[in-house]
Amino acid sequence: MAEEKEEKKLTEETVKEEKPEKTPRTQKVKENIVFVGSKPPMSYVLAIITSLSASNVKEIALKARGRAITTAVDTAEITRRRFMKDLKVSKIVLGTEEMPAREGENRARMVSTIEITLTRE
Amino acid sequence: MAEEKEEKKLTEETVKEEKPEKTPRTQKVKENIVFVGSKPPMSYVLAIITSLSASNVKEIALKARGRAITTAVDTAEITRRRFMKDLKVSKIVLGTEEMPAREGENRARMVSTIEITLTRE
Repeated sequence: MAEEKEEKKLTEETVKEEKPEKTPRTQKVKENIVFVGSKPPMSYVLAIITSLSASNVKEIALKARGRAITTAVDTAEITRRRFMKDLKVSKIVLGTEEMPAREGENRARMVSTIEITLTRE
Repeated sequence: MAEEKEEKKLTEETVKEEKPEKTPRTQKVKENIVFVGSKPPMSYVLAIITSLSASNVKEIALKARGRAITTAVDTAEITRRRFMKDLKVSKIVLGTEEMPAREGENRARMVSTIEITLTRE
C-alpha cells in the first residue's frame, strides 16, 4: 500500500515538473484564428460561431490575404450583424506578404493581408 | 420698430435652431475621400499622392465596397510601403450597405464596405 502511494506521489511530481515547460504555450492566451480562403463566407461564419460557443474564448481573429480579404470582411459583417450582435471589431491590422514567384514568373509578388479581431463583450 | 426687432430676433432664433442641423457638416473637417472601384490599385495610389501633395491635407480616406475592398487594402499598402513612408493607417471601419436588387433578382443584396483612413505624421 505504502509503495503504491509513493508511486502516485512521484507521478504527481512529474506532472508538476512538466508544467513550467508548458507555460509559454498556456500563458499567452492563444486566441482562436480562422484562416479565410476561397470558400463562401458562411463557412467561416459557422467556424467562428462554433469556436466562440464551444469554449470560453472571447476573442477570435480572421486572417486573409489577396482576394480573400473581401470574404474576411463579409464574414465579420455577417457574423456581427446577423448572428452574434454582442461581437465587436476590436482591431484591424493590414499588412503585406511576399509570395514566392509562381511558375513562369520571375519575381516575387506582394500580397496584402488583413487580420480582423472580433471580441465578445 | 419694436415689431421689426421682434421679427429679427425671431429670425435669429430660427437660425439658431437650424444651426445644430448644419453643424455636423461644417464642424467635421471635410477630409479627402478617394472612392476605390475596379481600376488597378496604382490609379488610386496616384490619386492619394496627388491629393496629399497638392494641399496641406494630412488625412485621406479610402472607401470601397464589395470586391473593391481588396483593391482598397492594396492601395493603402502600396502607398504606405512604396511611396509615402510617413503615412499611417489611423482608422479602419467596416460596414454593410444594402444595394437595390439587380434586374432578375427579387431581393436586395447586402454589400460589405470598408473605410481606411490614412494620416500623414
